[in-house]
Amino acid sequence: MKTRMARMAGIVALIGMMAGCRTAIVRENDGPAAVRAVLEQQVRAWNAGDLAGFMEGYAKSDQTRFASGGDITLGWQTVFNRYQTKYGTGASMGTLRFSNLDIGPLGSDSAFAFGHWHLTRGADTSSGLFTLLFRRTPEGWRIIHDHTSAKAKE
Amino acid sequence: MKTRMARMAGIVALIGMMAGCRTAIVRENDGPAAVRAVLEQQVRAWNAGDLAGFMEGYAKSDQTRFASGGDITLGWQTVFNRYQTKYGTGASMGTLRFSNLDIGPLGSDSAFAFGHWHLTRGADTSSGLFTLLFRRTPEGWRIIHDHTSAKAKE
Repeated sequence: MKTRMARMAGIVALIGMMAGCRTAIVRENDGPAAVRAVLEQQVRAWNAGDLAGFMEGYAKSDQTRFASGGDITLGWQTVFNRYQTKYGTGASMGTLRFSNLDIGPLGSDSAFAFGHWHLTRGADTSSGLFTLLFRRTPEGWRIIHDHTSAKAKE
Repeated sequence: MKTRMARMAGIVALIGMMAGCRTAIVRENDGPAAVRAVLEQQVRAWNAGDLAGFMEGYAKSDQTRFASGGDITLGWQTVFNRYQTKYGTGASMGTLRFSNLDIGPLGSDSAFAFGHWHLTRGADTSSGLFTLLFRRTPEGWRIIHDHTSAKAKE
């Protein structure tokens, strides 16, 4: 009887271990697809001149960070203001495109996205690279950290 | 008897769940300290003119990536070559300093580091920002992705 109980306890413990970790394992794999959808939504919003829609991709937190050159912009609203100052709204935002995306999980609630950005505003074209860190938030996967660099103009 | 066995099974399952996830929880928290130690070792190596020592901080993988401006350097050896071409070795490497480090975990085997870099080479000073992604590797925590940007010179 003792042996049977011990064996049963062992099996139940094993099932418990598997159940306890299943969530983490399953959750780990939906990040990249969700991140890709956020980026696609951002591009659509940008190209519709909808800066507020573009900003939906960023976590609405005062810790959300945008780094570029030697400057750090901290907080969702401040990042929004920076984009508004730099690109305005509507048609003046131009046409944005991302390419060569590399998206991967970093644990169950974090993911990164690395890629090229290309912006055309009238005759002006610029491009560069971005590294984004995403976190799973109650609202969905959102950017908490954006490090963007621009290619030097020739 | 059935009730006792069921209760025991429940408790054992709970312990199993806790045991199954304990590793992940405990491992998650040693990343930032290890990452900080890697960065300190890199600064020491750089300031000793030891570029190979500095490169120890990067994962020896052909997927290790260095992004700056609009350029991507892929692979540990290629990143090493880039540093050699740009900074040479020994005294010509100058004095490196990191400041305002923000280091955090991203799951059990990943972490990020964000901070400012300051480089003085003779009369020339430059500075900027870096975002690093670290992975736990068999050799320890190593940089797998480095996005560095430079402040525009005044």
